[in-house]
Amino acid sequence: MAEKITPRSVDYSQWYIDIVLNAKLADYSPVKGCMVVRPRGYAIWERIQAAYDKRFKETGHQNCYFPMLIPMSFLQKEKDHVKGFKPELAVVTHGGGEELDEPLCVRPTSETIIWSMYKNWIQSYRDLPLLYNQWCSVLRWEKRTRLFLRTAEFLWQEGHTAHETEQDAVEETMRMLDVYREVAEQVLCLPVIAGRKSESEKFAGAVATYCIEAMMQDKKALQAGTSHFLGQNFGKAFDVQFQTREGKLDYAWATSWGVSTRLIGAVIMTHSDDKGLVLPPELAPEQAVIVPIYKTETKAAVLAYCEKLLGELKTAGVRAILDGDESKSPGWKFAEHEMNGVPLRIEIGPRDMEAGKAMVARRDTGEKAPLEVAGLPAKAVELLAAIQKNLYEKAKAFRIENTKPVASREELLAFYGKDQGEEAGTAVATGGFAEGRWCGDGTCEAALKAETKVTIRCLPLDRQEGVGGNCCLCGKPAKHLAVFARNY
Amino acid sequence: MAEKITPRSVDYSQWYIDIVLNAKLADYSPVKGCMVVRPRGYAIWERIQAAYDKRFKETGHQNCYFPMLIPMSFLQKEKDHVKGFKPELAVVTHGGGEELDEPLCVRPTSETIIWSMYKNWIQSYRDLPLLYNQWCSVLRWEKRTRLFLRTAEFLWQEGHTAHETEQDAVEETMRMLDVYREVAEQVLCLPVIAGRKSESEKFAGAVATYCIEAMMQDKKALQAGTSHFLGQNFGKAFDVQFQTREGKLDYAWATSWGVSTRLIGAVIMTHSDDKGLVLPPELAPEQAVIVPIYKTETKAAVLAYCEKLLGELKTAGVRAILDGDESKSPGWKFAEHEMNGVPLRIEIGPRDMEAGKAMVARRDTGEKAPLEVAGLPAKAVELLAAIQKNLYEKAKAFRIENTKPVASREELLAFYGKDQGEEAGTAVATGGFAEGRWCGDGTCEAALKAETKVTIRCLPLDRQEGVGGNCCLCGKPAKHLAVFARNY
Repeated sequence: MAEKITPRSVDYSQWYIDIVLNAKLADYSPVKGCMVVRPRGYAIWERIQAAYDKRFKETGHQNCYFPMLIPMSFLQKEKDHVKGFKPELAVVTHGGGEELDEPLCVRPTSETIIWSMYKNWIQSYRDLPLLYNQWCSVLRWEKRTRLFLRTAEFLWQEGHTAHETEQDAVEETMRMLDVYREVAEQVLCLPVIAGRKSESEKFAGAVATYCIEAMMQDKKALQAGTSHFLGQNFGKAFDVQFQTREGKLDYAWATSWGVSTRLIGAVIMTHSDDKGLVLPPELAPEQAVIVPIYKTETKAAVLAYCEKLLGELKTAGVRAILDGDESKSPGWKFAEHEMNGVPLRIEIGPRDMEAGKAMVARRDTGEKAPLEVAGLPAKAVELLAAIQKNLYEKAKAFRIENTKPVASREELLAFYGKDQGEEAGTAVATGGFAEGRWCGDGTCEAALKAETKVTIRCLPLDRQEGVGGNCCLCGKPAKHLAVFARNY
Repeated sequence: MAEKITPRSVDYSQWYIDIVLNAKLADYSPVKGCMVVRPRGYAIWERIQAAYDKRFKETGHQNCYFPMLIPMSFLQKEKDHVKGFKPELAVVTHGGGEELDEPLCVRPTSETIIWSMYKNWIQSYRDLPLLYNQWCSVLRWEKRTRLFLRTAEFLWQEGHTAHETEQDAVEETMRMLDVYREVAEQVLCLPVIAGRKSESEKFAGAVATYCIEAMMQDKKALQAGTSHFLGQNFGKAFDVQFQTREGKLDYAWATSWGVSTRLIGAVIMTHSDDKGLVLPPELAPEQAVIVPIYKTETKAAVLAYCEKLLGELKTAGVRAILDGDESKSPGWKFAEHEMNGVPLRIEIGPRDMEAGKAMVARRDTGEKAPLEVAGLPAKAVELLAAIQKNLYEKAKAFRIENTKPVASREELLAFYGKDQGEEAGTAVATGGFAEGRWCGDGTCEAALKAETKVTIRCLPLDRQEGVGGNCCLCGKPAKHLAVFARNY
């Protein structure tokens, strides 16, 4: 199977697609731009969901469900919102065999339908905050799609909260950004930069958008999650007024925040290699696979030995499987489980058995060593933790290595070189993350994007204090430190 | 709050809606026929999901996700399927600002899109079985809707499996029916009858449909889950041929099966009373609520005492909360938590505290007794199990009490009386489940339905052996024992 994977050095885009298809994570569907998430991809999504959902609940949020169809007139109530989403809508014009009085769109995001309900549920400050979240799919008509990274329909969660004060809403926005960061780092092994978006990149309808940005192996940035402070924009658009503690009327303050199946794409692109998928053990549907190696006369003994170890691994909390398929050779199985990203492979033949040992291979480093079977379950738990840590550290080192401070336009252009086109098979990508001072003027940003496709990914939250000096693009006094990159 | 509930004896339909709205389980949405599932309703759904999902996985099924949009031409490939679903479709005609070449429908069910993918994934008997399930929402344009019971969009799971042989598929159909029955009985406390549907009631595209049917408190039947044996209908419609063990080509055999948020409606209608929701403890978001009763001088001591008990209840595995809201009286709280269906209420005042006791009230029976606080966590676990058992037993006794064997058309008509209209507020419902022999002829069934709205709910699986005698409708020789009822 492994030969089906195009090496990264030949064509990075094709390498990615080869992994998604060959590891059976997702497939193209007959509906243009929509994907099928196959069981191995969905199992990863379930683990991502569980990690986030647990933290959403710990921070006081409740799940609920709002209709997938939204009246077109709702979209139009917030002027920036409709401008941003209208070009991407799928529109239902007929239902039950009749033309509808008003067309409905399939939700591209749910602020409007949710705030139309909040109007009924919020009368007093006593009704606040509302801390709601829903897991669902959304639809945004996209011309150019790529499995997991950009599809017309994708799975996500969207948190929508309503608050009494601006400060409460701002704190919520930052709290959820931090939840996103924490799970990305600890569970998905994605080192991310938490920052604020520039005006041109913010969510349609937001006052401010915050994000976590990760670097892929081709040195491009990928936005992995966003948290929006919506001010009173939707409160006003849907007339959600409440009685304050002081007995006055005020509009409710809002946030919204989302992560999607795009995170699966980020995990693949960050950790995988030319042999296939590499998965953080926390996300891996199977964490260890035992591959028995035997001849007819040793079969029964080796299999019994493997079964015993399998039971012990499970007891130790390891998601382990035994690959007893007799129609496949051990070598074929090695390649298959490498393709699928199983973090640990345990090979056991008659000689290993006699010596009370097993050959254990790590998917992340390829290291292989004979280990005592007696202590193997405890050792496997340790190794899985080591792999989890290593994947994060490796990705972080890669990002640091490919991040460069730039002081001038010339330095910035030299760093990125000529744009090779988003879809081109770039043997060696140029650039990475450039860190430079920025005046805050959108025209500087737009000119750079038009020329190079390099954009401001974010203004990192922990780097804004005492920014002095001049804009690396125009030379005027700088207001922010910005992270520049080409992006997905 | 309790006075907002219309008593069942006055108007059963209104009683149901009052509970759904007042217990904040769901709400009407601005999109006709679509509902909003509010956090308390969704928390119940999450528990139902967890119970089923665990058993799906234990029986070898994997979750995945298929697009929500389906090309209209796909629906037309299976002739019965399109006939059944076409009148209920919502149709997307525009995407991304342009009219689509081919209209897409929002999935009413996913057999067609899934089997179009199975064609790519199934080549050989080695690829079988495929045991896939998805959790999603579906859309069926409905004229008359009722929260949870019948809405245009609803949440469900749909299992879709492909098999090598007819026998494998039939076994799968029955296995999943049994999973449905087990969770309905053990977790939802719904006594159900597992049976086969008559030809007129089967799924559009199925060879045979099996179901679980429950009796509501108004003695009507509610179909709580269905499992379909689809034969080779979809295998042929989508040309899913595979190489058999014998080296020949054959079409794959199929099943599909689903349960939905309708189950929440069944739970409400089966167990609740005129004070509000009654929930099986296994489904209750909160299983016990502590209500402190104090005056200013005893407040600190009583609250500390309650907090300690709260911690102990949680340690014992009870989902407990402490209602410390100072703006509400204890009496208001009692009514509120009764409305919300919290299975156990624990009242603690200064005198209880001094005596080392607490007053414990059961939601299901209304029984109230002072219990020693020392052993309360263990006792609470016992009481919750007793409530779980009692709700099932009570519902089962009600069904038995309202089930009548009938031998003739006259007996059957006398049992049901005059049809009072589906939406009428029936003070005392007539009828229930009638058990009678049936010839198997659809014309007998259709005539009865036209006259009385009574239909054959199912042919119970465990009652078909040695059926003799004559059809209770036409007098011809009988083939089946049938359960008759009016239904939701």
